Amino acid sequence: MIDLVMEFDAHGGRHLYEQIYDHIKEEIRKGNLLCGERLPSTRMLADYLQVSRSTVDMAYEQLLSEGYIESRPYKGFFVCKIEELYHFKAAAPQKSEYVRQSPRRFLYDFSPNVVELGSFPFGTWKKITKETLIDDRKEMFALGHPQGDMDLRISISHYLHTSRGVNCTPEQIIVGAGNDYLLLLLEKILGRNICVALENPTYKRAYRIFHSFGYHVKAIPMDENGMRVDALYESEADLAYVMPSHQFPTGIIMPIGRRMELLRWAAREEQRYLIEDDYDSEFRYRGKPIPSLQASDHEDKVIYIGTFSKAIAPAIRISYMVLPQRLLARYWERCPFFSSTVSRIDQSVLNVFIRDGAFERHLNKMRKIYKSRHDTLLACCRKYLKDVTISGENGGLHMIMHCHGDQTEEELLRLAGEKGVRLYGMSDTYIGRLPENWQPALILGYAGLKESEIETGIRILSDCI
Amino acid sequence: MIDLVMEFDAHGGRHLYEQIYDHIKEEIRKGNLLCGERLPSTRMLADYLQVSRSTVDMAYEQLLSEGYIESRPYKGFFVCKIEELYHFKAAAPQKSEYVRQSPRRFLYDFSPNVVELGSFPFGTWKKITKETLIDDRKEMFALGHPQGDMDLRISISHYLHTSRGVNCTPEQIIVGAGNDYLLLLLEKILGRNICVALENPTYKRAYRIFHSFGYHVKAIPMDENGMRVDALYESEADLAYVMPSHQFPTGIIMPIGRRMELLRWAAREEQRYLIEDDYDSEFRYRGKPIPSLQASDHEDKVIYIGTFSKAIAPAIRISYMVLPQRLLARYWERCPFFSSTVSRIDQSVLNVFIRDGAFERHLNKMRKIYKSRHDTLLACCRKYLKDVTISGENGGLHMIMHCHGDQTEEELLRLAGEKGVRLYGMSDTYIGRLPENWQPALILGYAGLKESEIETGIRILSDCI
Repeated sequence: MIDLVMEFDAHGGRHLYEQIYDHIKEEIRKGNLLCGERLPSTRMLADYLQVSRSTVDMAYEQLLSEGYIESRPYKGFFVCKIEELYHFKAAAPQKSEYVRQSPRRFLYDFSPNVVELGSFPFGTWKKITKETLIDDRKEMFALGHPQGDMDLRISISHYLHTSRGVNCTPEQIIVGAGNDYLLLLLEKILGRNICVALENPTYKRAYRIFHSFGYHVKAIPMDENGMRVDALYESEADLAYVMPSHQFPTGIIMPIGRRMELLRWAAREEQRYLIEDDYDSEFRYRGKPIPSLQASDHEDKVIYIGTFSKAIAPAIRISYMVLPQRLLARYWERCPFFSSTVSRIDQSVLNVFIRDGAFERHLNKMRKIYKSRHDTLLACCRKYLKDVTISGENGGLHMIMHCHGDQTEEELLRLAGEKGVRLYGMSDTYIGRLPENWQPALILGYAGLKESEIETGIRILSDCI
Repeated sequence: MIDLVMEFDAHGGRHLYEQIYDHIKEEIRKGNLLCGERLPSTRMLADYLQVSRSTVDMAYEQLLSEGYIESRPYKGFFVCKIEELYHFKAAAPQKSEYVRQSPRRFLYDFSPNVVELGSFPFGTWKKITKETLIDDRKEMFALGHPQGDMDLRISISHYLHTSRGVNCTPEQIIVGAGNDYLLLLLEKILGRNICVALENPTYKRAYRIFHSFGYHVKAIPMDENGMRVDALYESEADLAYVMPSHQFPTGIIMPIGRRMELLRWAAREEQRYLIEDDYDSEFRYRGKPIPSLQASDHEDKVIYIGTFSKAIAPAIRISYMVLPQRLLARYWERCPFFSSTVSRIDQSVLNVFIRDGAFERHLNKMRKIYKSRHDTLLACCRKYLKDVTISGENGGLHMIMHCHGDQTEEELLRLAGEKGVRLYGMSDTYIGRLPENWQPALILGYAGLKESEIETGIRILSDCI
């Protein structure tokens, strides 16, 4: 009989059968037991090791399950042919070199990508969550509709209709975990070999995402009304990605005339579409909100994308996309099998949050807070800074400061950074070369800074300019 | 002066300025006010309408913002040139034709895709959620790491190491909203023009997803040990998608020898990888769990994908992917800009659920429940059915019943359906033609049925066979 001497570890807490299984597996791996070799019968091994036969049975069964040994009728158990056995050892966990550096902390960060989280209605959110997680609603944990739960889609369609003029049925809405995901899905709906036109400057993440799709990306210059339609026609693009209500970064509001020209461009060819990214239009500090481009679309050409990242919080990870009817048909044809990416609990909480008016109250509150910060920033720029002009104000969560002095953007960012003020250069938002006669400009986000911080930040900035 | 007679609606709750703005906008849209026409000055219109001048100012300002009119210095306000104005009317919401029919309710549904939700620890989940949503943890609502929060990734890596033998650092893990999303991300990491080999039969959703990527999909026949490696070599695939611990649908456990052959296949070419979809290996009812294929990989070739859909609940929408080091580098190069798709609140709740042992307790509880249903199903098949054989049992949440009678699968499904029993045919899981000598087979999922329901369901089935 093969030597199967083994020492049992009585204190390790491991079952005897596991120890026998491990020992034999190691013997096979080390090559001490070779392919085709016969193992002792369970009875013999049980006698030899002085354990019960069922213990050896269990060990053999596990070895059988994993394919280390095979059973031949009336002959017994044999070691399997195994092409090559790597030694299984727990590799010492290596620290990856791709860990992101935790960013340097600045005292005053004028990021356009943060929102004020201190005013989040934690109490309401918690209360709704608690009510959602009651024991008899176990359907909450079953897989939901791929487009998102109908209740939530109805709430979103009402909200979009009243606040943004968007015309859609809940059936046209797809709820997804963030805009990036919705764009990934849209790629599957639209297909390959697409030429997409972006405003230049633009939201660079969208640029990178379209680029990662292998889309042909065309940067279309802007005038004071937004994307230049003459250049769009020349580009031969199939798809134009625009932010008509408050363009990022310029803050330009596309006037109705330009919108109509864009819609006509799209209507000219069957495969042309417009993506309207309506990322921050909840926030407008003068007059009424600017209606969406989708509101003027009667040719079924606008793909409308919105998010709760700005209006509620970035970590909520809930966005939505309104598909034109003809793309909805294609969605059901090409990708109905992609499951929803948003937990049904989260969908239910958000639905109640909107339906019961908490969302509107929250928006009204945030609009006041952001308006005050917006006004403070404008006032401070006038009070402390010379040789700068402001554009893109009155809406959203950022504005643009054009600097007319001799300093480069880089110098300004560096000098301010040394004094604890984090600034964001507008030149980063251009695709390709900067326009001629380019003057340094800063994207000043104010959503995450209190009024006193804005004032101090701008005072520090005045020392750098 | 242009005729701007308008009737104010004193009871509609709308501000006067909005009514003036709406009236002028409509006049422009209807063509009553033409391009280039001059509007009355704000003072004149205010006098005429007997409203305050600031009211008219606000109306004009909104029209300016939206681009209906323009202001010429010292001359006044003029109607803009607008290429074409569609009439804005709220289209009557149409019912979409793509609404899914709500599925017919069956009394006994042997779906392999459901889990038992009645045993979900609602109390624990609610308690952890409540503790997560405390007011001073506002960082919960800021955007997190694209791969998922480090705390959760550490918990997952510990769990994978101890329960599945997976060797990885938390830096290799990407948390995402479901397997479908992780595959979408993987497409961006791996790139285009890929030939992927799938076991045949297989999980059809994966097949459809790879197909939607434009990947060249090869169906590789299986023998009793899983994917045939000779056919894999012939296929010239770059990527093989396998379920080694409990193949869907066959339930085959890939033996160690076949695993080594697959690993060797992958190691032969730089660009070859294996995707291990370890979808239900938490549940094994005999012996120890089968270790993962990744545990035997020492060439950095296995992309390991797991999910909490089976172990916790489908609606949780949290899956994870362990990338080999070299693909991790490519992830950071090609798609670091895709934001995480899982809410940080959910990540935090799940992390505490795992870290504090609730997950392990839940798994132990569910394993007992499912084992009892598994055993009941096996016993009932023996008791009530003749001319059938069972395979793929002892693990996961389904088994295969091979039917040796004269009936077709379709007939069986229809007959049982008429009596309220929903069955799933195995022929649906084949890519392309069925193998020669194909015999009807059913995929019997038992996770969502109580023991008594299983017994009744199988008794009904016995009347149909």
